[in-house]
Amino acid sequence: MKPIAEIITIGDEILAGTTLDTNAHWLTGELVTLNIPVLRRHTISDTPEEILFALQTLSDKTSIVIMTGGLGPTRDDITKKTVTEYFGGKLIFSESLFQEIQEKLRHRKRIIPESNREQALIPDNARILPNPVGTAAGLYFEDKKGRRVYLVPGVPEEMKSIFNESIRPELIKLPGEKIRVYIYKTTGIMESEIVDRIEEGLNHFPMVKVGYYPSVYGVTLKMTVKENEAGAVESRLRDFLYNQLGDAIYTEGDRDITEIIADKLLSRGWTLSVAESCTGGLISHRLTEVPGISRVFTEGLVTYSNEAKMRLLGVSPCTLKKHGAVSQETVIEMARGIRQRSGTNTSLSVSGIAGPAGGSREKPVGTVWICAVTPEKEETIRIQFNKGRHMNKHFASQTALNLLRKLL
Amino acid sequence: MKPIAEIITIGDEILAGTTLDTNAHWLTGELVTLNIPVLRRHTISDTPEEILFALQTLSDKTSIVIMTGGLGPTRDDITKKTVTEYFGGKLIFSESLFQEIQEKLRHRKRIIPESNREQALIPDNARILPNPVGTAAGLYFEDKKGRRVYLVPGVPEEMKSIFNESIRPELIKLPGEKIRVYIYKTTGIMESEIVDRIEEGLNHFPMVKVGYYPSVYGVTLKMTVKENEAGAVESRLRDFLYNQLGDAIYTEGDRDITEIIADKLLSRGWTLSVAESCTGGLISHRLTEVPGISRVFTEGLVTYSNEAKMRLLGVSPCTLKKHGAVSQETVIEMARGIRQRSGTNTSLSVSGIAGPAGGSREKPVGTVWICAVTPEKEETIRIQFNKGRHMNKHFASQTALNLLRKLL
Repeated sequence: MKPIAEIITIGDEILAGTTLDTNAHWLTGELVTLNIPVLRRHTISDTPEEILFALQTLSDKTSIVIMTGGLGPTRDDITKKTVTEYFGGKLIFSESLFQEIQEKLRHRKRIIPESNREQALIPDNARILPNPVGTAAGLYFEDKKGRRVYLVPGVPEEMKSIFNESIRPELIKLPGEKIRVYIYKTTGIMESEIVDRIEEGLNHFPMVKVGYYPSVYGVTLKMTVKENEAGAVESRLRDFLYNQLGDAIYTEGDRDITEIIADKLLSRGWTLSVAESCTGGLISHRLTEVPGISRVFTEGLVTYSNEAKMRLLGVSPCTLKKHGAVSQETVIEMARGIRQRSGTNTSLSVSGIAGPAGGSREKPVGTVWICAVTPEKEETIRIQFNKGRHMNKHFASQTALNLLRKLL
Repeated sequence: MKPIAEIITIGDEILAGTTLDTNAHWLTGELVTLNIPVLRRHTISDTPEEILFALQTLSDKTSIVIMTGGLGPTRDDITKKTVTEYFGGKLIFSESLFQEIQEKLRHRKRIIPESNREQALIPDNARILPNPVGTAAGLYFEDKKGRRVYLVPGVPEEMKSIFNESIRPELIKLPGEKIRVYIYKTTGIMESEIVDRIEEGLNHFPMVKVGYYPSVYGVTLKMTVKENEAGAVESRLRDFLYNQLGDAIYTEGDRDITEIIADKLLSRGWTLSVAESCTGGLISHRLTEVPGISRVFTEGLVTYSNEAKMRLLGVSPCTLKKHGAVSQETVIEMARGIRQRSGTNTSLSVSGIAGPAGGSREKPVGTVWICAVTPEKEETIRIQFNKGRHMNKHFASQTALNLLRKLL
């Protein structure tokens, strides 16, 4: 039987709208990579009634359940008790686990709160999954149908750590049909345009299942093929996609455009500096998410004021006066200025109106000018995108990075 | 009867682990603000079987259902058909809606894909909810029990726009017991320490329901009181919390620490510049998420290389050689340097080892030095936090902003 999973997130903080559930997302990605499809995800509150509902309505197809949350040192954590009793066990106080928790906290020189005693209660019908980074252990139950049920804390680092060390090694051994997943990430092209370009041609690939995943950074295509059919189709599929979509595809596989840029810079032996205005540091932040980026990225200047654009980048007062800070002339001077002063081979600059205020008739909110410079080329583009300050920044950052990528 | 909601997210992209479900999170926040508790959230795939399962297992308590996703121009969108038929209707082609969609796309000077014809199919048993920013309309169904079922597209901007213009105005009119929510945001203090400081005292506030919501930025406390009991408890509760937690509380209400800093700077008439190393632009990015920040924030320098630290901030080569880039001496020179050169009243600097590489015995990965300077004070701190590069950056950015906040 092919393993199929459900994920249950327990937590009033998520249903209160206070906390974004990134755990379920992360777990989904990990399970999919293990070729274990996630049938459903549920988010429920920390009450016995709701926990029982979730357990009782599990699909018959589901053979793996991962429950997160409800294992911390606050008073409303009744998850452990409810799940233990549902599977026919009861909680007992473990002196040895208590000592272990105390030791961990002492080691970190933290005051030991009384509420940690709760965390030393363990079910008599579960296997303990050690928590390498926190105090609340994970638990493994097996129900009468042989269904595997994992209960892990909701703190993301603890959940991930327990998954990586105890759960993944078990799941990887399960049998199941192998599939191969091909990821093609595109940017600068609308989902509906991609559909029109590839949909008809995909009829020649009936064995390929296609998913379109749009975000502000572009559309990701995920192609799934059975392992035994992959060999016959792989290179033909790749040719077809590059033929239809060209360099709108910036990578195969699940990497960020910043990683692609880092690789290209490294392979050319080039360095990069960035001058930002409306993106406000987001491009530098995204670049510095890449480990080892310091080998190619030397500096990023967020020149928010005109004075800073002149002093730090050498933008001329005349240009600012005549064309404004959001203009082709200004971004060219920004990019040339930072490239010259920092001594990097390449540079990138952005100036625009993130909003909500600051727009005009000629330059409405969302107007952004971008310039990229390499030893070989210099290019500018103007974009117009207005979906709120936050999204405008992200869209501009991606468009700027994509302009640079194409020049490398 | 008190309105209670369930949210159903339809989308293979979420169950494929490709897309983070921010829609359910946003909707939850909006519903909670309308005093409509969210009982459960589900994420299911785009198949008739799963959509029917979700509709059939709705709780009897649930009177409002919001379904998102499954309304875009790709071939696997069968949501509309399934839901329409579940509620006893069928799909018909609407020439007028088709014309409207064509007009929208023409207006944006986009090529009109054939797949948009699909979007002009409308149920004969639903009310159309206009989509102000996209082409796929929302739908409203009512089941036999009088349950309200809203179906909206999964594109976040479209979902939000339809919710704001068509759904919220309806929900706000529903009857229900009024509650008041008090939010206290803390940072720099562990959840278990907060519990120990306030848990006992909270026994004197039996009418207050407390939730703890930890994240890498700190712990948010959410206190809920019935509207008619709020007057008697509000100021006493506030006094108690400030007494126990002091200035670990940085705001009441749901605002980011950057907004608090912006307010404080504005009220003092001060300006700010930021010099970052390991946080890589994240602090500037976070500050520039605040609309109007340009009145107080003039520049942010991401001096990733030592050369940039010397040239742009005036950090002395001797200091770098003797103490290293990650040291108290260096962050002091960074903060003083940028403050002097930019002419701002206040400044903030950060230098650390984000990882995964670059650590040593004396300065392991996660070691970060921070300095904040105002016209009145100068303060430095060293932190040690290692939960991966991404989290390290976020934790360091929050700690730095908090240091600055306390000095303002």
